[in-house]
Order: sequence, then structure tokens, then C-alpha cells
Amino acid sequence: MLLSDELKSYIRDVADFPKPGIVFKDITTLLKNPQALQKASDALFELIQHEKIDKVVGIESRGFFFGAMLASRLQAGFVPVRKPKKLPSKVFSETYALEYGTDTIEIHQDAILSGDRVLVHDDVIATGGTAQAACALVEKAGGTIVQVSFLIELSFLNGRDLLKGFNVQSVIRY
Amino acid sequence: MLLSDELKSYIRDVADFPKPGIVFKDITTLLKNPQALQKASDALFELIQHEKIDKVVGIESRGFFFGAMLASRLQAGFVPVRKPKKLPSKVFSETYALEYGTDTIEIHQDAILSGDRVLVHDDVIATGGTAQAACALVEKAGGTIVQVSFLIELSFLNGRDLLKGFNVQSVIRY
Repeated sequence: MLLSDELKSYIRDVADFPKPGIVFKDITTLLKNPQALQKASDALFELIQHEKIDKVVGIESRGFFFGAMLASRLQAGFVPVRKPKKLPSKVFSETYALEYGTDTIEIHQDAILSGDRVLVHDDVIATGGTAQAACALVEKAGGTIVQVSFLIELSFLNGRDLLKGFNVQSVIRY
Repeated sequence: MLLSDELKSYIRDVADFPKPGIVFKDITTLLKNPQALQKASDALFELIQHEKIDKVVGIESRGFFFGAMLASRLQAGFVPVRKPKKLPSKVFSETYALEYGTDTIEIHQDAILSGDRVLVHDDVIATGGTAQAACALVEKAGGTIVQVSFLIELSFLNGRDLLKGFNVQSVIRY
């Protein structure tokens, strides 16, 4: 079986979450399985292992799972991008459009050094708005984005269109 | 230098966060440093490496960082304990007292199998209420708690008193 098909078999579809009409891709059923967790971590690591990475940026909060593992495996630092009022020190903020309304994410101003080579990671890319905002925060802080990686890409939502110019990678595509 | 003193040098004190009078221990300054991240991960791993662990339970959301790394290193599954309405499938809930009011955390009902050997992890133990509730969730799901580990223990708050009967470990104490 293809790795991506094997990993798909561990992902649970939850109908009408977080709101009616949306089929949520639940990765907790993959995370709780030791073999699936390791294979997913390996697949993400193999996409980036030949690059020198200074910081892995994980997006709150499901991007923290594999983001932290990748930082450890790459011998890089880990930087969380968080929702407002979660980070205690001075932050850069970025507001982006949702289907209805807006959302904001933040990064500590001292989290990235000028010239740092950065991997940005989240569990899922849907419309790409959150990842685009995270990339803007990393560049505002002076980082160079080497790769933007996702465990799951919902390719019918064309999220890559918002990440033009970046090296976008994913392990599982729907 | 003692490891715990060395790691302390990477932790930032932020006054009056999240509210006036509280000095917040900010671990993002440790996470972003590759050497400090690795040393902290190693220290937590060494506390548990000789035990067979089926699941690592990480508490939302700063418990996800080292929790996920530990799961990968222990070849265990990873299970997030989350705030209400974040987990998409059926959950067990546990409500616990705060200084003012209450809080609730949840775990997926199918996350832990009966007899699973579990490591519960969070970044900081303060009064111990959250960790106690997380342990109650794991036991409700049928798991056996082998260890409860924290990167940081605020020992003047006596959080261990709420975790009597469990094997409680920490790397850095204040």
C-alpha cells in the first residue's frame, strides 16, 4: 500500500465538525497509533532532512504535534505561532480573512533571528489563510522560509494558491 | 553547571502575565534554542526511558511540545487532552476548581485502551488541578498511569499534593 493511503486509513472523518456541512479530518486516531505516528513523522522528516533548518515554526495548536517532533529531529529550535494573548512577551501580529470575519495569529518578536532558515508546519492546509499569515510573521521577523509542510493537504480548496513562491510540501492529499 | 540551573537560564520570567501579580515562566525562550530544547527533551526522556509506555498524554497546549517528542522517542502513541469543543469525537470530560470558577478538559473516549500504560505530561505544574483532572480522564478511559512528568515544578504551590499515589517527576523546580 502507498504510504499516503496507509496513513489515510488512520484518519477519521467527523461529519459536521466544527460546523454543519464540514467533514473534519481527525488526526487523533493517527497520533494514538505508535506505528502511524512514527511513519507520519518519518515522512515529514524525509521531506526536509537534507536542508539546514534553524527554527521549526508550528501553528497553534495541531501544528505543535509534528512541529515539535520535527524540531527535535532536525536539531532546530521550535517556535509556536499562537492565537492572540497566548504569548507572554512582545509579538508581531497578522490578521487574515476567514469565510466570515477575520482571525489573528502572533509570533514572539525575538523568536526568529534575521537570516534564520525556517520550516513552517501545520497539520492541515485548507484554504491556506493561516499558513500564509504564519509565513508573513516569519518574514516580518527576518526569517527565510525554506519549506512549508503539512501532514494533510485538502487540495480541492486550492490553499497552495496563497503560498505562491514558497516550497509547499504535504504527505497526504484529498 | 547543574542541568536544571542551565535550563533555568533559558526560561524567561514575564511579570503580570496572564494577570497582575503572576510571574509567568515563559518556556518559548528555551524551545527556540536547539541545544536547550534537546537537553530538556533528553532530561524528560531519561526519567521514563526504562518503562514500557503505550500512550503519552499531553495537556493543551504547552504540554503538546514535549509530549509529542516523548511519544515519538518512546515509540508510543500520542493523545491530546484538550479544552472543551476542540476534540471532534465522543469525549470524557472532567471539571476542576480554579482560584475563581472552574475549568473543563476532555479526552477522546477511544484514545486510551483498557490497560494502556500511560505517561501524562505537561510543561508546568502549578496548583496541580489540571494534571489531577487529566489523570482522572486517563483512569476513566481505563489507562494505568506510570508517570506524571513536568518540565517545570512550581514547588511552592504544592501541586504534588493533588497527585498523591502517582509517580510525579519534574526536571526544573522553583
